[in-house]
Amino acid sequence: MSTTVWNGEQRRLHIQEVGPRDGLQMESVFVDTEDKIALIDALSDTGVSKIEVTAFVSAQAIPALKDAEAVLRRISRREGVTYSALVPNLRGAQRALEAGADEFNLVMSATNSHNLSNLRMLPEQSFAVLAQVAQLGQQHKVGVNVSLSCAFGCPMEGEVDPAQVLQWCTRFVSEWGVSGVSLCDTTGMAHPAQVHSLVAAFKARWPDTELTLHFHNTRGMGLSNVLAAIDAGASRFDTSVGGLGGCPYAPGASGNVCTEDIVHALHCLGYETGVNLEALLTLSRRLPALLGHDTPSALAKAGHRLQRHPVPAEFEDIRQRALQRLNG
Amino acid sequence: MSTTVWNGEQRRLHIQEVGPRDGLQMESVFVDTEDKIALIDALSDTGVSKIEVTAFVSAQAIPALKDAEAVLRRISRREGVTYSALVPNLRGAQRALEAGADEFNLVMSATNSHNLSNLRMLPEQSFAVLAQVAQLGQQHKVGVNVSLSCAFGCPMEGEVDPAQVLQWCTRFVSEWGVSGVSLCDTTGMAHPAQVHSLVAAFKARWPDTELTLHFHNTRGMGLSNVLAAIDAGASRFDTSVGGLGGCPYAPGASGNVCTEDIVHALHCLGYETGVNLEALLTLSRRLPALLGHDTPSALAKAGHRLQRHPVPAEFEDIRQRALQRLNG
Repeated sequence: MSTTVWNGEQRRLHIQEVGPRDGLQMESVFVDTEDKIALIDALSDTGVSKIEVTAFVSAQAIPALKDAEAVLRRISRREGVTYSALVPNLRGAQRALEAGADEFNLVMSATNSHNLSNLRMLPEQSFAVLAQVAQLGQQHKVGVNVSLSCAFGCPMEGEVDPAQVLQWCTRFVSEWGVSGVSLCDTTGMAHPAQVHSLVAAFKARWPDTELTLHFHNTRGMGLSNVLAAIDAGASRFDTSVGGLGGCPYAPGASGNVCTEDIVHALHCLGYETGVNLEALLTLSRRLPALLGHDTPSALAKAGHRLQRHPVPAEFEDIRQRALQRLNG
Repeated sequence: MSTTVWNGEQRRLHIQEVGPRDGLQMESVFVDTEDKIALIDALSDTGVSKIEVTAFVSAQAIPALKDAEAVLRRISRREGVTYSALVPNLRGAQRALEAGADEFNLVMSATNSHNLSNLRMLPEQSFAVLAQVAQLGQQHKVGVNVSLSCAFGCPMEGEVDPAQVLQWCTRFVSEWGVSGVSLCDTTGMAHPAQVHSLVAAFKARWPDTELTLHFHNTRGMGLSNVLAAIDAGASRFDTSVGGLGGCPYAPGASGNVCTEDIVHALHCLGYETGVNLEALLTLSRRLPALLGHDTPSALAKAGHRLQRHPVPAEFEDIRQRALQRLNG
């Protein structure tokens, strides 16, 4: 059997959990600090490569994450896991630094409309603000990852030119010297053909820059996008336990691709993720009690593919009668 | 750009709608005969290649489809669409024939446990019963398709040996001379590696037998399975409008892969399906009112990927302030 995307052959992929930040920031209930810490510690134990722990934004802007310092300081650090924090500006970066972030995650959008709506600045202004953050990170030997929103489309502007996306990447890499770039499909507009082509272009130009793909399952294409990205050379994926998260511009739609659904599928295909699926599933199944609502996780409902279901109660009778007819 | 599964290049695929039978039989409400006919007629107009219209089973077994004759007789036939009906035995086949079915769809399972639970017979006994149906179909020049359940796994027995699946296919083709075979992932256990390998094996042996893949999205792998099947040479897929259907052994889990979600993704990739996505979406969005519950359709909620969302109400103020800062 030749090596294709359908045969993982133990190739190593990296699962980066974004539920504690990207997921919880969308929740209307405030999850207690202790519960957040317990969730993150349990996620560390599952074997994910990175966790986006929290965001150092203003408590007014995102009250759900107002306990950023306490959470980041008090989680148990596990070797091999990178603890990342979203930082919108220099003030946030200083707070994240003091609280011990391994990595700053910087966010800006590829389009004017989305950057203005989300960050109240033009992309060029975000770039100037975040340049200081990138510099601070490098001074302190903290990883600097930039997440480019709307890399596969903008809910307000529609199609986004891949040349525009690659131009921003050029600036992140050459002007800031970032350690990583995440191409974010913020509202689930990415499709596999587009993903394959953009990932291939990125990998050809920046083979040594850590590339993450951040997909949403809004239109049911999440896993297929992951596979198209792998086929083009990607190996890092942002996913969210329970499929938490979402998008304010597409109410009712699915959120981030679900960690356990993606891990389950990748294991079926023979990829190595280092993640303990059973532990992850146990964790995911506790989320509805924590958050007060069901999650979009398919695995939490259906269990893994070889999960056995009992035969019907009257099965033995049916079988005996069938055998009698066969022999009679 | 070379031809890969990610680039459809207008290759023609066939979408076979199973909602009216496979979907509606799971519903607890009885959908009025007139509403069923209107649904099927609207589906015919969308451009699907085949519609599984109903099942000629006993009214006691599946009361939801007790109006099989009336529905099949009274729908409007559109050229190019095959109107198929599930028939479990000779009596059902005779009824379907009289009502004007273009095709008999015969169903049996690859495993003892599932066949006994679902059909109260051993697979060998089902084979004997269905042999008569196949013969009747051929006598009357009606298409004969056999749907093999649990071709990718059994919810009660677990993994199913592909050799066992291919052995049944050999018998369908050589003993019955069927026009088509559907490999059915009855409970969403299929994964892309397995699909690719089984489809490739089937196509190598029976290049001239119509092969359909019937997937469920129970574990979120539906679209990826479709793509793996295409990559291995398949071009026909059973799908269900709104993602209707399900499985009694996996409560709460997703049903059949959703027609509009699959068509949308395939169009994004440049495949030709002949289906009018907008018409399909309009139809899908009427289902909750008809059935009294939400459907698993992603597209019905999120719209197509280039669906534009309005900018926030205060957008122009934000933009003006940003521009002032930029120029000030």
